[in-house]
Amino acid sequence: MKARKYVVKNHFNGIPKREDYEVIEYELPSLVDGDILIKAEWVSVDPYMKVFSSNFPTPYDQFGFQTGVVLESKDPKYPRGTKVVSHAGWCDYCVINPGKFTSDFEIIYKMPDLQDLSDSIALSAAGMVGATAYFGLLEICKPKAGETLVVTVAAGAVGSIVGQIGMIVGCRVVGFTGSDEKVRWLEDEIGYDRAFNYKTTDIDEALKEAAPDGVDCYFDNVGGEMSSIIMNHMNEFGRVSVCGCISAYTAEEDNFPKASTTQLNIFLKQLKIEGFIVLRWLNEWPTAFRDITSWIKSGEIKIKEHVLEGFDNIFDAFISMISGANTGKVVVKL
Amino acid sequence: MKARKYVVKNHFNGIPKREDYEVIEYELPSLVDGDILIKAEWVSVDPYMKVFSSNFPTPYDQFGFQTGVVLESKDPKYPRGTKVVSHAGWCDYCVINPGKFTSDFEIIYKMPDLQDLSDSIALSAAGMVGATAYFGLLEICKPKAGETLVVTVAAGAVGSIVGQIGMIVGCRVVGFTGSDEKVRWLEDEIGYDRAFNYKTTDIDEALKEAAPDGVDCYFDNVGGEMSSIIMNHMNEFGRVSVCGCISAYTAEEDNFPKASTTQLNIFLKQLKIEGFIVLRWLNEWPTAFRDITSWIKSGEIKIKEHVLEGFDNIFDAFISMISGANTGKVVVKL
Repeated sequence: MKARKYVVKNHFNGIPKREDYEVIEYELPSLVDGDILIKAEWVSVDPYMKVFSSNFPTPYDQFGFQTGVVLESKDPKYPRGTKVVSHAGWCDYCVINPGKFTSDFEIIYKMPDLQDLSDSIALSAAGMVGATAYFGLLEICKPKAGETLVVTVAAGAVGSIVGQIGMIVGCRVVGFTGSDEKVRWLEDEIGYDRAFNYKTTDIDEALKEAAPDGVDCYFDNVGGEMSSIIMNHMNEFGRVSVCGCISAYTAEEDNFPKASTTQLNIFLKQLKIEGFIVLRWLNEWPTAFRDITSWIKSGEIKIKEHVLEGFDNIFDAFISMISGANTGKVVVKL
Repeated sequence: MKARKYVVKNHFNGIPKREDYEVIEYELPSLVDGDILIKAEWVSVDPYMKVFSSNFPTPYDQFGFQTGVVLESKDPKYPRGTKVVSHAGWCDYCVINPGKFTSDFEIIYKMPDLQDLSDSIALSAAGMVGATAYFGLLEICKPKAGETLVVTVAAGAVGSIVGQIGMIVGCRVVGFTGSDEKVRWLEDEIGYDRAFNYKTTDIDEALKEAAPDGVDCYFDNVGGEMSSIIMNHMNEFGRVSVCGCISAYTAEEDNFPKASTTQLNIFLKQLKIEGFIVLRWLNEWPTAFRDITSWIKSGEIKIKEHVLEGFDNIFDAFISMISGANTGKVVVKL
């Protein structure tokens, strides 16, 4: 049986290019003991595919979450017909052996109970993205009712869920995003207290107005000067959850972005800043999926997906996501 | 009875100047219920006297720790003859009412048991300075045996104790300081594994050599680019204790120092950075004093004091400390 997969040939230099990938068609091996054959149904594209690229020697198979169904199985834990979420990446079919997983990047679990929502949700709000928002906010920022939460990349897949969990906790939520259309979506549909287009706004003035009592929690996706300015507004014992650093992702090594030093604020205001990779809570992801799914069903969390179709369009979906052209989570239906 | 005190007339602009102070002689009030009259014996000069200046409207009495003896008392908790450590500042005599303290900056406690060491130690290793090193390192960095600890301002009053507590824990300790003489003192007398003069050293190269297994704990007194470079060398789940930010202290507001953004390291390495003001552990200071005093007596911690004499020399002692001209803790004997 034939399968196709995207292989990364070259580490990305700036924005990934189509030539950095090769799509390979190959004959799947026959199943040996412990193997399962998965037919992919939905494939995810996410920023970490770029950020962590340099950790892997090329060529490597593009990793990433996908949902699928087990077509054949020699692993009794995943019998034929089981719906699974795995980190098998950008492929249409694959054979994997869960019992022999050795690295943190080899992951499989059964499809969570999505209460009739689309399986694609297992790649967004009820997947790694949702877990990132859930644990990154609740475990690191530890927001309390009445506090002010600031979110950057606020209309992104993670940021839009962070803000809504903040609202459920009872925070005042202020977001920064990259277009007026996204500002309207955040304020009018998602329900952020205030949102701003960072490209056309003085961040300092915006926070004076939108966070008059100061900022208690900051969910940081950008780093750089924007984060330095936000940290000027933080209250004593404020908490910062560092989930990403877009300002640095595309920088060349000898042109790394500079920003006002943050240590004076960290010291004087006794701030706590913590970075995280959501895999550290992998065993607790089901808790996040259960809560978020029920919040979606109750209407407390609204989600937006941007769906592209077809195996051949996965690369375009990836670039669309990286460029910030879309609002919400980009997923590909095979 | 006459007393003298230093009053800050103007907020400091850059290095404090003698004209920013006025020494006032005044008649002490007679004691009312709850008052105590203290004769100061040792007076401390510390960086936070500059850093926190702008929190107080001028004119204000210069705050700071001092040791002294109770000459008269209408507070049964501090009878005549009691040795006390208080935050009564740069004065020779004072009347205070401990029962009516309202601010965090009003502090008094009985002289800890110094096991025959000089009372001046209650202003350094067995005082706020020692508590800063003890809790800032142990509670925030949480160092473990075999880990590598980096300390900036390593020969300072706090830094030199931080490094030695790190050694007691079993860390490899690497320090950065501002002169070759201090490097020799740290390596030859204090026992740092390695020390470097940051003014004449490539920090990145120094760490490649001195911390080949990466940095697990960083006690940060400087901020700025030096801290950004050190954070490039940190290991996953590294901890940074932010105790100060010398790079920013003398900066003017429109010329705040810029440094390479740290968020990428914070995110990818899941670092935890926390700033602190040691008053948060005030109730636990006696534990630090007891441990540090016994470490001094056992020889595990070596201390160095730079003693100036006379009430009239407190300002000079302050400037000497700020300029970094001396090694170890600067104290004034009245």
